[in-house]
Amino acid sequence: MDWLQRPIPQPDQRFKLTAIKRQEQLTKPAGSLGELEHLAIRLAALQATNMPCVDKVWISIFAADHGIANAGVSAFPQAVTAEMVKNFVYGGAAISVLAKQHQAHLEIIDVGVASCLLELNIIHQKVAPGTANILTQSAMTEKQLSLALQAGRDAVSRAITDSSQLFIAGEMGIANTSSATATASALLGLSAGQLTGAGTGLDSAGITHKARIIQQALDKHKINSSAPRLALQTYGGFEIAALTGAYLAAAQQQLPVLVDGFICSVAALVATRINSEIKPWLIFAHRSQEQGHQLLLQALDAKPLLNLDMRLGEASGAAVAIPLLRSACALHTQMATFAQAKVSQA
Amino acid sequence: MDWLQRPIPQPDQRFKLTAIKRQEQLTKPAGSLGELEHLAIRLAALQATNMPCVDKVWISIFAADHGIANAGVSAFPQAVTAEMVKNFVYGGAAISVLAKQHQAHLEIIDVGVASCLLELNIIHQKVAPGTANILTQSAMTEKQLSLALQAGRDAVSRAITDSSQLFIAGEMGIANTSSATATASALLGLSAGQLTGAGTGLDSAGITHKARIIQQALDKHKINSSAPRLALQTYGGFEIAALTGAYLAAAQQQLPVLVDGFICSVAALVATRINSEIKPWLIFAHRSQEQGHQLLLQALDAKPLLNLDMRLGEASGAAVAIPLLRSACALHTQMATFAQAKVSQA
Repeated sequence: MDWLQRPIPQPDQRFKLTAIKRQEQLTKPAGSLGELEHLAIRLAALQATNMPCVDKVWISIFAADHGIANAGVSAFPQAVTAEMVKNFVYGGAAISVLAKQHQAHLEIIDVGVASCLLELNIIHQKVAPGTANILTQSAMTEKQLSLALQAGRDAVSRAITDSSQLFIAGEMGIANTSSATATASALLGLSAGQLTGAGTGLDSAGITHKARIIQQALDKHKINSSAPRLALQTYGGFEIAALTGAYLAAAQQQLPVLVDGFICSVAALVATRINSEIKPWLIFAHRSQEQGHQLLLQALDAKPLLNLDMRLGEASGAAVAIPLLRSACALHTQMATFAQAKVSQA
Repeated sequence: MDWLQRPIPQPDQRFKLTAIKRQEQLTKPAGSLGELEHLAIRLAALQATNMPCVDKVWISIFAADHGIANAGVSAFPQAVTAEMVKNFVYGGAAISVLAKQHQAHLEIIDVGVASCLLELNIIHQKVAPGTANILTQSAMTEKQLSLALQAGRDAVSRAITDSSQLFIAGEMGIANTSSATATASALLGLSAGQLTGAGTGLDSAGITHKARIIQQALDKHKINSSAPRLALQTYGGFEIAALTGAYLAAAQQQLPVLVDGFICSVAALVATRINSEIKPWLIFAHRSQEQGHQLLLQALDAKPLLNLDMRLGEASGAAVAIPLLRSACALHTQMATFAQAKVSQA
């Protein structure tokens, strides 16, 4: 896992300054495009170009199961993980529809689904048929963690080979808000109760039960908040580890990342704790309705683009935000300057 | 102006109920698409269809000048109104770029620009070369109000002839935040200071001066808050009246409207005061950074989709939100149901 510590380049300040200057010259009151200006400037610096562009978007969905699913922490049965992978492949899931709408490349990676999916046209990197139950042992071994992180890195390699300009990762895994909540609680030093939410739709009694289960797991392992890799191994999921590996690899290779909701933000937190230089590469797409997301976003100092009360996962929130990034780029590169359009300035 | 009072049909409840039922059957936790679910259900009811669709979008930009511009209420000189109309036509403005990105039809209507624009390929319905100065007299005569409202209605007729599925209106007019602020202050019974913002970019001294000017106009005319048409005639602009007429005509003819920022919301307020049945037809795209917009949205009981600190006008905020409506429709019509995808339910 040495590659995790490889240096992450910083955004190019020259292109940032040029982009700021250009925004001031475009035919609009200075600052009047708000976040779209910041996005364009940021993408110009990240892509080291005067012509930022996110036409080519790569979406990798990592699917895996969780030992904790048997503890009654989800509104849905574990079989849904595999069933939804099929739904992704056959085009009926939200992310299938959104990827098609936005002409993004969509791939599905089985990093740990409990059932056999070999008949499906997906990427097969199953680390194990689900993690262990974190109430009794670590979610995964160190070797398994390494494989899951590498699966994320491999996805980024494919994205880069395909000349992608923006990387999005998503997840599918019944009970993975529990694994993610436990991981984040450990790293932020919070109780399970502070971060636990409804996931796919628990009622308040269900949330109370879920928080109690997560707290039990936290109390059993007592992982130090300054040990991100160990927290991921102990509480995480194979898909959460793959997300973490993907984010770090993308930043190392200077590919901007659009982060989805709660689970992805937990992976972003782990990645940030492994190497804080990743921060500029992570663009946060939306604030999820999942209760803990707001605290998590604060911890990450992240200001997401959208707040639409979504809480579906599978990269759907990030996919919905793609056109905002494209608008930012289009405005930045295609608008006329005051001089070009002969418009008087303030 | 009798047509203003024509009845506005209400959304079709049968299609609303069918859409609610369908959302419950799609392969996702119930409610997990948040606002996108509400949008799809709303559009299904407004379009009276099981297949809501906003592929065909019509954007009308109304441009006009304001007598009050001479009172130093804007950061830009009045000539910019005409200069920006040219920029729209030649494709260099923000709305030009966004309309192209989203394949929306864009038309520009001169309803009152102070200079001659007859050489341009736009729609010429100039009511007068700018409104009168509201510090000394009414912005327009009753006849002029009628013509400006009709220009809005005419735009909707063209949109409907072209089979548009969504109507967006925008505005360009140096000093029109002053006219809009005065109109809204009169209708909401607020002082100018409570609603006045930076417009195109005044500093705090500039905002104080602008608020004082607007308050002078309010004090001179003292229009009753229950007289929306008179407030529009007294304080408004030709483009604000055109927006108002367009919104009412669109709702009368069952064409859903996506409302842009501050100025458009003032027109929406006037329209709502003329006929409150319009409310379901108005989808609010974004919360503008313009100071008074939040108060205005509250008065309209509106929850906008985006909050990106934009404050450009010219329908740019609405245009940026188009893909969200398209995502809502695509998800609603293209996702598989639990039964179709053989996915287990909660």
